[in-house]
Amino acid sequence: MGNLTTQYERFAELVKEMADVSHAQALLSWDQEVCMPPQGAASRARAMGTLAGIQHDHQTAAELVDLVTALGQADLQGDTAVNVRQVQREQKRALSLPKSLVVELTQTESLSHEAWVEARRNDDFAAFQPWLEKIVELKCQVAEAAGYTGSIYNALFDEYEPHACVEDVAPVLADLRQRLVPLVAGIVDSGRGTDDLFDQPFDIGPQETFGRRVMTDMGFDLEAGRLDVAVHPFCSGTSPKDVRLTTRYSAGLMQTSLFGIIHETGHGLYEQGLPDAEGMPVGSAISLGIHESQSRMWENMVGRSHEFWQHYLPVLADHFPQQLAGVDVDRIYAAVNQVESSLIRVEADEVTYNLHILLRFELEKAMIEGDLRVKDLPGAWNERMESYIGIRPGNDADGVLQDIHWPVGLIGYFATYTLGNLYAAQLYRKASVDLGDLSGQIASGDLSGLLGWLRTNVHTVGKRRTATELVHDITGEPLNVDYLMQYLEGKFKPLYGLS
Amino acid sequence: MGNLTTQYERFAELVKEMADVSHAQALLSWDQEVCMPPQGAASRARAMGTLAGIQHDHQTAAELVDLVTALGQADLQGDTAVNVRQVQREQKRALSLPKSLVVELTQTESLSHEAWVEARRNDDFAAFQPWLEKIVELKCQVAEAAGYTGSIYNALFDEYEPHACVEDVAPVLADLRQRLVPLVAGIVDSGRGTDDLFDQPFDIGPQETFGRRVMTDMGFDLEAGRLDVAVHPFCSGTSPKDVRLTTRYSAGLMQTSLFGIIHETGHGLYEQGLPDAEGMPVGSAISLGIHESQSRMWENMVGRSHEFWQHYLPVLADHFPQQLAGVDVDRIYAAVNQVESSLIRVEADEVTYNLHILLRFELEKAMIEGDLRVKDLPGAWNERMESYIGIRPGNDADGVLQDIHWPVGLIGYFATYTLGNLYAAQLYRKASVDLGDLSGQIASGDLSGLLGWLRTNVHTVGKRRTATELVHDITGEPLNVDYLMQYLEGKFKPLYGLS
Repeated sequence: MGNLTTQYERFAELVKEMADVSHAQALLSWDQEVCMPPQGAASRARAMGTLAGIQHDHQTAAELVDLVTALGQADLQGDTAVNVRQVQREQKRALSLPKSLVVELTQTESLSHEAWVEARRNDDFAAFQPWLEKIVELKCQVAEAAGYTGSIYNALFDEYEPHACVEDVAPVLADLRQRLVPLVAGIVDSGRGTDDLFDQPFDIGPQETFGRRVMTDMGFDLEAGRLDVAVHPFCSGTSPKDVRLTTRYSAGLMQTSLFGIIHETGHGLYEQGLPDAEGMPVGSAISLGIHESQSRMWENMVGRSHEFWQHYLPVLADHFPQQLAGVDVDRIYAAVNQVESSLIRVEADEVTYNLHILLRFELEKAMIEGDLRVKDLPGAWNERMESYIGIRPGNDADGVLQDIHWPVGLIGYFATYTLGNLYAAQLYRKASVDLGDLSGQIASGDLSGLLGWLRTNVHTVGKRRTATELVHDITGEPLNVDYLMQYLEGKFKPLYGLS
Repeated sequence: MGNLTTQYERFAELVKEMADVSHAQALLSWDQEVCMPPQGAASRARAMGTLAGIQHDHQTAAELVDLVTALGQADLQGDTAVNVRQVQREQKRALSLPKSLVVELTQTESLSHEAWVEARRNDDFAAFQPWLEKIVELKCQVAEAAGYTGSIYNALFDEYEPHACVEDVAPVLADLRQRLVPLVAGIVDSGRGTDDLFDQPFDIGPQETFGRRVMTDMGFDLEAGRLDVAVHPFCSGTSPKDVRLTTRYSAGLMQTSLFGIIHETGHGLYEQGLPDAEGMPVGSAISLGIHESQSRMWENMVGRSHEFWQHYLPVLADHFPQQLAGVDVDRIYAAVNQVESSLIRVEADEVTYNLHILLRFELEKAMIEGDLRVKDLPGAWNERMESYIGIRPGNDADGVLQDIHWPVGLIGYFATYTLGNLYAAQLYRKASVDLGDLSGQIASGDLSGLLGWLRTNVHTVGKRRTATELVHDITGEPLNVDYLMQYLEGKFKPLYGLS
């Protein structure tokens, strides 16, 4: 065991060094979005490339490979086993990919990104088609090299939702789709009009003050994090003690900014609540799906709840007395929960959102599995939009070309958004049961009960469990579509007068 | 030659990778001062340590050592020769220091820094004395390991002012001291009172607007740099295309903030003007002395000139009509050029400033050369303060304990401040001759002539010349104290009615 201890110590030392390089990589990326002056881009790209190379060299160095092999055969327990298993997984993948393929993919993604920007601007799918064909081809090569069980899609899915298996997930998502489509149709057919409450300008200063108030009420620790402005809202950071959120403000888009902050704070609370393992894998997030469950739970189940606005409407009205004069809780609750058939995913409400995701998941799965040719993609996209959401894009720029994901090689990613919503609903139901009067707590402005529950049940678990295990541990059952549907139907049927 | 070309290409590749790691190191340091939340410190310290280790491993890797050896023996010309020579210098130093010594020094500097903070707070030199003794001892070991010609002090001096030689510099500085002491005494004896113009509050908002105006008038490119707020003003950055300045604002310290911005912009213009060599050494600054010549020239020779205020007084008065009501150019010129015998270096005017530096230079040189024991340092300090500046510290906190340099191991650094002033005066005189009517240009608000001259003569030279060579190239003579003395006497004798 003495030998094993020494081996593990050296292993941990090497892994922490990789975490330190990741720390630098994360800061360089954050800075690029938030601080870097425009002309710094070329030098930053070179530095990022070099750090990625250093990281790859460390990850695949003979010493670490030998240590991982030795430790992987030992009978390790607890966190040490988690750490070794996780490094082994990532090392195996890194070793499996020929350097030539990695280089070609990186270059193709960069060029494809440029081609996509141009193609979207010109509404010209044909110009982008060869790039997407190349991306799909290379991604299939990556999958073959990395290896998989069942569908080839699993090799890609696994990068974002570790241990997930499309054979399990696809039927769940299909079930969700079949139940969402009639709900959306019912809402659209209800004929209820829209509310123009948020179609007026809100000054940015008070927006920011209010957003920061909600963020700190939620429990985000500004001694261990920041909120900045960036073009694209995101959550990043270098450790649980340094978590960085961004948002953007616009006088005409008050809702976008507020729910953006709440969403990113949900991510940020998860990061701040992870065990501080000095960079060892046990202290990292389980999966993108679990991460998204945290942001969506706070954004939608809390931030778009009636009880939330019972407490926060008066606070917001203090900041915007003119805009909110005479507005009551029912009205603002309805205004933040409007459902519309719309073309653009990132602007979608929480009912239609998952249908936007599901069509992308189905199409990318079909492309990777060889059942859909890239040239047939726009047609397939438009048909599904019509049959799922009841609206057909008038052009590809507002259709198949709208997302950045495929152009930059993110295939296998989309489903994690909907998994996040499913996990969120199932966990939130359990939190409500455990906490007794969660709605009452929120209505009185006390968000600490929910945060405490999430800390105990989700955040501090770190990477000790898979997403599937975590959900089962907490709720006693597997992932179940019923919870999201019950939540959505319970909320939106009354709002739209459906029975 | 084919072989040599291949060797040089590989050498350049490795050196650029080191530059990329430096890029990350620079950003991590900048972020620590400007953005990082307090709790991020521990993880940041680990990451910085790891990057330093990676850098050291790369610098001393066998492949690079072999390449440098081979290329060092070849007959290289131009920039390739500069690059190889520079890497060779730094590699030689890195290889010469035993790892145990580097580790001990790093740890001692960190502990010594803590002890100094405490000792300064308690005005307790005795508590700091053993730490400084240890620092001096380790620095002497470093010097012995690194090797030197002439005085042992040269090994330390060379880190900050490459190729400088204390046997040449000390007499120049002694000459300067002998000529400054009577000038200071004359000014003090003149009995002219002080002006309270800047002893009133100036709002921070307009201070910042005005400071940014001057910064951009000077030619600082905000597409390739930033200005932020930090506790300590500094200039940093990751490349000539991403140069980052900081300052601090205080309503009661308008001068500190404004001249801080001008000073750091002087550094920043040098950085932005360096050749973009993608991280190769030829694109780096010559020395700390030359760097300081750029900041001090803009701060003092330009920013504290009568002609500068001819243009900028009306602009500043637009921002502060109340504070500057009835103030004419002569008055503000006198107010920004007040000379006082004072105890604290960082608050000193440009006449007494160099005497603060010279006593530190003399004392650290004596400690390293074995001519002064650390326990005798406070007495030596106080005696020199009295004989050079005419004022004796009432306690060590305002005396020998005031600077952070020695506690953190910066020995051999102080002289570069005064070298900067000497270089600045000599270069500024030549610029005035070359440009014909530099004063007139400045009085009309045109700072581009001077910047253009500096770009051509200093900035774009990069590291192709040593400081001594550069000054000789430009002015046709060696470093000459006369220029600084003529500048100071020409400015301050009239201001204080001296003949």
